[in-house]
Amino acid sequence: MSKHSRVNRPIWFDENAGCIKVIDQRRLPHRFEVAQLETVDHVITAIREMFVRGAPLIGATGALGVYTILASDRSRAMDDGHFGSECRRLKEARPTAVNLAWGVDAVADAVLPEKTASDRIRACLDKAFEIIESEVENCRRIGENGMGLIEKISREKGKNEPVNILTHCNAGRLACIEYGTATAPVYKAFENGINVHVWVDETRPLNQGARLTAWELSGSGVPHTVITDNAGGHLMQHSMVDLVIVGTDRTTRAGDVANKIGTYLKALAARDNNIPFYVALPSSTFDWQVKDGMEIPIEERSPDEVRFVTGVDRDDTVTRVLVPPQDSPAANPAFDVTPAHLVTGFITERGICDANEQAIVSLFPENRRDDVS
Amino acid sequence: MSKHSRVNRPIWFDENAGCIKVIDQRRLPHRFEVAQLETVDHVITAIREMFVRGAPLIGATGALGVYTILASDRSRAMDDGHFGSECRRLKEARPTAVNLAWGVDAVADAVLPEKTASDRIRACLDKAFEIIESEVENCRRIGENGMGLIEKISREKGKNEPVNILTHCNAGRLACIEYGTATAPVYKAFENGINVHVWVDETRPLNQGARLTAWELSGSGVPHTVITDNAGGHLMQHSMVDLVIVGTDRTTRAGDVANKIGTYLKALAARDNNIPFYVALPSSTFDWQVKDGMEIPIEERSPDEVRFVTGVDRDDTVTRVLVPPQDSPAANPAFDVTPAHLVTGFITERGICDANEQAIVSLFPENRRDDVS
Repeated sequence: MSKHSRVNRPIWFDENAGCIKVIDQRRLPHRFEVAQLETVDHVITAIREMFVRGAPLIGATGALGVYTILASDRSRAMDDGHFGSECRRLKEARPTAVNLAWGVDAVADAVLPEKTASDRIRACLDKAFEIIESEVENCRRIGENGMGLIEKISREKGKNEPVNILTHCNAGRLACIEYGTATAPVYKAFENGINVHVWVDETRPLNQGARLTAWELSGSGVPHTVITDNAGGHLMQHSMVDLVIVGTDRTTRAGDVANKIGTYLKALAARDNNIPFYVALPSSTFDWQVKDGMEIPIEERSPDEVRFVTGVDRDDTVTRVLVPPQDSPAANPAFDVTPAHLVTGFITERGICDANEQAIVSLFPENRRDDVS
Repeated sequence: MSKHSRVNRPIWFDENAGCIKVIDQRRLPHRFEVAQLETVDHVITAIREMFVRGAPLIGATGALGVYTILASDRSRAMDDGHFGSECRRLKEARPTAVNLAWGVDAVADAVLPEKTASDRIRACLDKAFEIIESEVENCRRIGENGMGLIEKISREKGKNEPVNILTHCNAGRLACIEYGTATAPVYKAFENGINVHVWVDETRPLNQGARLTAWELSGSGVPHTVITDNAGGHLMQHSMVDLVIVGTDRTTRAGDVANKIGTYLKALAARDNNIPFYVALPSSTFDWQVKDGMEIPIEERSPDEVRFVTGVDRDDTVTRVLVPPQDSPAANPAFDVTPAHLVTGFITERGICDANEQAIVSLFPENRRDDVS
């Protein structure tokens, strides 16, 4: 049981208040605050401003977010035009993670056949809960399937030597619902007494590694060390990394991986040093419509996320500080694409596969098709 | 003339006060403060705590710093044992940049033959000034020699398209005395009306790019954009970088390049995208004794440099904020080594050469030798 057990999940439905609640992850690790999402605009803001982030959690928030479209104005719950346009608006909150549209569409498909506002709301929640529980189960299986990779290295190194796993950004419990994707094999290995140590890339500009992954691992007692995003290559050159596991916001059917900016650099370094580079994802993060990762839209976020850094000052007040000169411009592409040939394999709920279309589709044959360019 | 012209140099000797003065670069860009170095301990602190940084400037500070050994206690200026041990202490202030030992040794060699304290002090200053002026001249020539690379790309792209140069850390005027190393070709091209734009890696943990390179370029009116260290690979994949130029803290005779942590990752990305990757350096930064870059000592600095970020808060007060959880450990290797095979070439005061021992020694034949392993 984690010391953060009072918050088992980063999103939940408060039955009493009849509304969605999320951890405001912008304030972690220094503040623990819960935000209440009552309207679709609240949900859109929470996704866009990154109260919630991480592909599976964005998918879950989109799915549950459909509830606010129906419930905030029940008189329009049967207005399919309104419902459709609000769903589209919700899906556009962020462009890169494929899970958002996937979650919204799945719930919308369950809602539309229903003939009353109450039935629609009930169907919406049922479907959203089903998606959420299925993502939890997917992450649990990702943990089981990925643990073997860590166990094998541990056997080779011996019990006294930790298996050093590098991860980028946060693909942990906070990015999902439970377990995480990239962190699930780590938690599973740790629970099973395997000697693990995680190198946590701080992950500029928003420091999801330093703030969120470190907080999660610390709460669970998993040994870890925060490093700058610059340090991973050096550590790999010096045999201080045994395995890289990252998450992804969208992976093409050919295995190109969109993930937090900087992932590509770590994949290059892993390849240069013969270190296995794995991507952990539930099947909801595959974009079965796209082959070439260069077609994935890459979100360009506010330059202020680069210019300012948030933390706590000596009085423990949450403060943001400006680092570069006031008049220097900044750019902030939020994701990059790691080509499939740099990926050792994918850790999914159905098992591990190589990073090519044939291997991926063999694991998910329901997505076999010949008409994708 | 730069708008920062009141400070032409980051180090100078104040004849009136009889002491060394340096810009305290830890406070830039938000504060401009000058520190006075009166004892060798002041000099060691200024180097270790990074009031001054950058290989050529550390070399100049070491050279001029010898003055404090002689002048702070003239009664011991003829005590060769004391002088030697203080010089050794000074050389150990930081381990990676080879220029420090080189600068101290060159001045010590000029001092020791002198027979009076006054002559020693005079010889010390003469030699230190000679080294400083020769480094200024080296940087000027690096600018001239490197400008052609930018000019050629500009001719190919046409006047309307900027030549996009990515640089890491600060190898600018603030790291040297004037012009800089990596920035010298940029300044020279800019002065000659070539359309240039610089991608400035922020360079965690100490943000020398965001703080110092951006400040320098801004002061000189050179178009630039600050990016996270994570972003360069993505920009290269999308043809938004034409050329990478970085500095170095120590380069072996075989062409392996120790430079600010993260340089290696950019070299890998440049290679993966067929983008030329140049290293600009004066000959004082070559370590003629070492072939294999893995033998270069890599400084491990305080974890607090990773955990805390300094900037100005909304009241323009210089503040440092803690980013990760209080109880998460951090690691802070300050440099990495880019193997020669990833380097397109070296821009030196004598011209440009390929990154291999034969080519380097052809340019600097006085360092030809067969007994280096």
